[in-house]
Amino acid sequence: MGNSLGKLFTVTSFGESHGRCVGVVVDGCPAGLSLADEDIQREVDMRRPGTSPASTSRSEEDRVEILSGVYNGHTTGAPICMLVWNQDVDSSQYLKNRFLPRPGHADFTAFTKYGGFNDFRGGGLFSGRITVSFVMAGAIARKLLELKGIEVLAHTVEIGGIKAQPKETDEIRRNIEGNALRCADPAAAEKMLQAIEKARAEGDSLGGIIEAVALNVPTGLGEPVFDTLEGDLAKALFAIPAVKGVEFGSGFSAATKRGSENNDPFAIENGKIVTLTNNAGGILGGISNGMPVVLRVAVKPTPSIGKEQDTIDMEKMKPATLSTRGRHDACIVPRAVPVVAAMMATTLCDFAIRAGTIPEVIK
Amino acid sequence: MGNSLGKLFTVTSFGESHGRCVGVVVDGCPAGLSLADEDIQREVDMRRPGTSPASTSRSEEDRVEILSGVYNGHTTGAPICMLVWNQDVDSSQYLKNRFLPRPGHADFTAFTKYGGFNDFRGGGLFSGRITVSFVMAGAIARKLLELKGIEVLAHTVEIGGIKAQPKETDEIRRNIEGNALRCADPAAAEKMLQAIEKARAEGDSLGGIIEAVALNVPTGLGEPVFDTLEGDLAKALFAIPAVKGVEFGSGFSAATKRGSENNDPFAIENGKIVTLTNNAGGILGGISNGMPVVLRVAVKPTPSIGKEQDTIDMEKMKPATLSTRGRHDACIVPRAVPVVAAMMATTLCDFAIRAGTIPEVIK
Amino acid sequence: MGNSLGKLFTVTSFGESHGRCVGVVVDGCPAGLSLADEDIQREVDMRRPGTSPASTSRSEEDRVEILSGVYNGHTTGAPICMLVWNQDVDSSQYLKNRFLPRPGHADFTAFTKYGGFNDFRGGGLFSGRITVSFVMAGAIARKLLELKGIEVLAHTVEIGGIKAQPKETDEIRRNIEGNALRCADPAAAEKMLQAIEKARAEGDSLGGIIEAVALNVPTGLGEPVFDTLEGDLAKALFAIPAVKGVEFGSGFSAATKRGSENNDPFAIENGKIVTLTNNAGGILGGISNGMPVVLRVAVKPTPSIGKEQDTIDMEKMKPATLSTRGRHDACIVPRAVPVVAAMMATTLCDFAIRAGTIPEVIK
Amino acid sequence: MGNSLGKLFTVTSFGESHGRCVGVVVDGCPAGLSLADEDIQREVDMRRPGTSPASTSRSEEDRVEILSGVYNGHTTGAPICMLVWNQDVDSSQYLKNRFLPRPGHADFTAFTKYGGFNDFRGGGLFSGRITVSFVMAGAIARKLLELKGIEVLAHTVEIGGIKAQPKETDEIRRNIEGNALRCADPAAAEKMLQAIEKARAEGDSLGGIIEAVALNVPTGLGEPVFDTLEGDLAKALFAIPAVKGVEFGSGFSAATKRGSENNDPFAIENGKIVTLTNNAGGILGGISNGMPVVLRVAVKPTPSIGKEQDTIDMEKMKPATLSTRGRHDACIVPRAVPVVAAMMATTLCDFAIRAGTIPEVIK
Repeated sequence: MGNSLGKLFTVTSFGESHGRCVGVVVDGCPAGLSLADEDIQREVDMRRPGTSPASTSRSEEDRVEILSGVYNGHTTGAPICMLVWNQDVDSSQYLKNRFLPRPGHADFTAFTKYGGFNDFRGGGLFSGRITVSFVMAGAIARKLLELKGIEVLAHTVEIGGIKAQPKETDEIRRNIEGNALRCADPAAAEKMLQAIEKARAEGDSLGGIIEAVALNVPTGLGEPVFDTLEGDLAKALFAIPAVKGVEFGSGFSAATKRGSENNDPFAIENGKIVTLTNNAGGILGGISNGMPVVLRVAVKPTPSIGKEQDTIDMEKMKPATLSTRGRHDACIVPRAVPVVAAMMATTLCDFAIRAGTIPEVIK
Repeated sequence: MGNSLGKLFTVTSFGESHGRCVGVVVDGCPAGLSLADEDIQREVDMRRPGTSPASTSRSEEDRVEILSGVYNGHTTGAPICMLVWNQDVDSSQYLKNRFLPRPGHADFTAFTKYGGFNDFRGGGLFSGRITVSFVMAGAIARKLLELKGIEVLAHTVEIGGIKAQPKETDEIRRNIEGNALRCADPAAAEKMLQAIEKARAEGDSLGGIIEAVALNVPTGLGEPVFDTLEGDLAKALFAIPAVKGVEFGSGFSAATKRGSENNDPFAIENGKIVTLTNNAGGILGGISNGMPVVLRVAVKPTPSIGKEQDTIDMEKMKPATLSTRGRHDACIVPRAVPVVAAMMATTLCDFAIRAGTIPEVIK
Repeated sequence: MGNSLGKLFTVTSFGESHGRCVGVVVDGCPAGLSLADEDIQREVDMRRPGTSPASTSRSEEDRVEILSGVYNGHTTGAPICMLVWNQDVDSSQYLKNRFLPRPGHADFTAFTKYGGFNDFRGGGLFSGRITVSFVMAGAIARKLLELKGIEVLAHTVEIGGIKAQPKETDEIRRNIEGNALRCADPAAAEKMLQAIEKARAEGDSLGGIIEAVALNVPTGLGEPVFDTLEGDLAKALFAIPAVKGVEFGSGFSAATKRGSENNDPFAIENGKIVTLTNNAGGILGGISNGMPVVLRVAVKPTPSIGKEQDTIDMEKMKPATLSTRGRHDACIVPRAVPVVAAMMATTLCDFAIRAGTIPEVIK
Repeated sequence: MGNSLGKLFTVTSFGESHGRCVGVVVDGCPAGLSLADEDIQREVDMRRPGTSPASTSRSEEDRVEILSGVYNGHTTGAPICMLVWNQDVDSSQYLKNRFLPRPGHADFTAFTKYGGFNDFRGGGLFSGRITVSFVMAGAIARKLLELKGIEVLAHTVEIGGIKAQPKETDEIRRNIEGNALRCADPAAAEKMLQAIEKARAEGDSLGGIIEAVALNVPTGLGEPVFDTLEGDLAKALFAIPAVKGVEFGSGFSAATKRGSENNDPFAIENGKIVTLTNNAGGILGGISNGMPVVLRVAVKPTPSIGKEQDTIDMEKMKPATLSTRGRHDACIVPRAVPVVAAMMATTLCDFAIRAGTIPEVIK
């Protein structure tokens, strides 16, 4: 259980890192949306390793196949199953280390929870590879949001302690795909890259922070008191492996502010009610207020590192050491950027359908 | 919709700040739990204003009534409805300012979403008062967790930029109720108090950070890939008004760490697998790993302040100013502490029931 | 768990027969619906015993109180909690027979499932009294449906083997409240009444069949393949104690028909697509087709009878006999009629909200 | 939306009759269950056309593929995706009649609900072919139930008005696969077969009734007041195309019985509490009572018939006639038998997991 997300726009994920495929069923997509394999492929390609120097050199070819829910180039109202087949990959390393859980990874908790029956090869469904599913679902969500002019942008704002300078939306939009780090600040991106290369050379890894912004979100999305916009966005984002924190607007820095600083004054612009600042991150009382929805997620450094680490042998119950070999990312932040955008889009789409913003049939 | 939380231990909240009552229905509590009004009352009293000098001087008397689901001093397996009746309160200020949304508050989004039909008096269900419901539900959850030796502790770790020194668990447990700020570091508490008084005197307010720890959580709670322990905890916590960030373990600071620092090495202690550090906050792959579950929430400064603020008149669509009078907390962090503990307990309880840790009947 | 029903229009029931109250929380009612206690009271009064000679002579006075979700005579978008307080009732009979389960009743299964902690007095939440909750929720649903011209009619069509003659809709609407049996055929009602009196005199009880019809249901309600209109209606109806069968349109009689007889030919009337017969009961492929939705439920004879019956002593694990004394209905069919209407309305309302037929705000 | 069923054992269906495949994701299957393609194949083969003379002569070869959730011959705790690929089928008939809805079929409601974007070829997901998904999921449920000794039997009890004689459980179990009609009474089966041949020859079709029995169901499954065992079974069964009625135990015949006849007296047999009759169909108060769970479903005659029928042209909005050509079953009852068993098993399995009867890991 636990592999479905969303109330009216429902995403059910399946597949494993070294199994046959990774896939997703999207239920609740309105009928009539123009949709082709390439719409999904484009987004999936963005999270593929190899598109970024920061990332592993594995050459995966993830060809998206839509198995159901689309006819004559349009969604039918039926559930949309999509998948990518896995290439044959070498699992020998995992078989050899089966009883040696990687520190910082789900190996130990999965082994315990599923009584040792979990597919541990490549981390099974705990692998970052599962996020291909998230991106496929998110691609549909983004197309639906676009119909209403809602745009989701995500970008790297910090890696290894190196912070990007804040940029205007236009610059962010333009720069995201301009460098391998998906960072809107090219100068910072250069430094981040060096830091990653250094960490990689030392058999180590780096974490970072991703910011995501949703523009043109209408007022009224969110269903308090429990199904708040923040709450459901956060839940969706924590499904991304390595995410350990989520904040909205001024977030944790609000803790150091005064109410008179943090409150966003209301004003009228072009006949529309706006706020003059956006410390609320576009959400008041769990409901969107019409300003950009702004959030940040903390991504921990990749747990799979070359450096030798202390672990235990779960079978023999004795200490052991482990050095993760193989082509692992020294920093997954850039590859997680489209995943953050996908999860944000998926959640917004669910709320937009609940609110009637996106109708049952697209005409 | 949106007022129910949890899959097997389900909490449905109702009531408003200035309506007749605030209440909750807890469905899925195992039969056989010893439960009396006082068990709930004790927890509700902890979030009452007036127990802390930092808080408003309103004297509310919230007498808990259990309306269903308990017979002969034990839960019956039927849904448990609990409520506190509201005292008559003066709504004149709200009636007067009906069309002037308070910056930082839900007034504007609620007005827009519900077409002006929302009960705006005292903020309706967007009031902090709704958290009485959360605490009532959490009181039951905590009793269930205690049966398995699981303990939830929450405490203030930062207010207005003043940070508490880290303390050992025993000291935290001992000190939480030792000062009005629910801060385990008495020296910091003293400074926080002064900062709050200063802000209050200036018609302003302060935010802060609350940490919560769950001890003796068994390995295996959490249902990835979507119903992760982090995700469902975060969703529950964002239901608390004013929470704008949630992080687990090293959280946002993981962004500046290397994998070799952030990974928690495994070891064996007393025949049990443990980690030597706890940067994971007790959660790996969305599943508890047997270490303490540690999280922090960012609480924004109370939006209701005495200082004059810019707003707009929603009816006349023109600029206006607003100064919130009345007895508002200058810092709600201390009062939010038991609420954070309640939401954490409620979520852990739901997962513990899913995992069979807590059985269908308590014997 | 299990006490909530509906996806967007969600009903959470609580309370027991001999506890403090019976109540319900309705979450997801659009804001702006005009609603007063009397709107609910009217419907609750219809299922009250004493309004029908067929029913028990207990004089309950069920005064409906709306505790939340309504302000200034309109719904606010917040959850609506409603309840009726129970009068003090004599539980001595139940205390005496605590370990003697009544044949045909939930006493045995509740005792076993809840480890003996269930509130057995009056059957606890397994009592027909719990349907006061259903009727209160249904009253709101009916008001919402009325806004769209959707009308739900329920009436008795068979009791103790005596069948009512089929009547036109107008006659049904007119006659339902014309006799104590809620039967549209006055002649049959007379015979049913005699049969009930005879059964009562012999310490026995009778079952029957209730038909419900929803008029002006738009085409398109229902969410196949699993959330079909039939499936969700049936689920809601089986929550009514004593219901043991549900059928739509030609129902079980379809088993004896040929396709050419049972298929409803399409035609065009007044520019609208209709069917010339309605063997489908207004539902094709789990989706409403614009014709009246027609269903029938089988109600078993009341299990509580005066006649001596064989049972067992659950404590001593030995045979025993039981004769249920007290004021029990000899036939609950007439009192179940408004409950069937309520559950049908509640389910239709949920689907109508999902389909956008009923908007988020009523203007 | 609406394509997922179940709370802890969750089935998500996808695929269409003339699309690429029909498949299902089963989430919540405990880890450690021995599972191979053949386990699923065996059950799917039973509903295949061609195994019964009563059925269409289409030769489909449905080869089951498990895509995820199984490793080393055992379930892993991850979601299990299974599918069968569709063979190329001729859709020309459907393309030609695109705007002529078949009476009794979902063509009209699907067209209206999905704005004409639905995949109408072969009925899309409204085709009986979708039940391959149900059977695949049911195959897993049956394996899980078997671990606890719970057995589900389904058989034809009526076709075209011809009723089978009641048989003992052993005889049912033995005879179900003894004839093409899956009828435990061979003499009746013979007559049913003749009736079907006659209907087919006349371009017509027949309906019938299927009975299903679950043996060794433990006491305590079901979660009243809304998630009753009857309610959730009925909801699952109404997802089967052509089902128009569901009853439990004495069902609709209870309407003609007295309480003293219909109540099942309790007794003690071999130290266990039983009932001497089973008019309750194994369910009291929505909870299993330890007796066999017995239900019956009414299956309408197949709507696709050769005889000319009146319909309308939805595009031109004028009357039309239609004669469905092609290889359609003259009676789908025998092929629906394994589907009824599958849906019953799926629902029981969900409740058994909720009750802890089936554990999180199979050892």
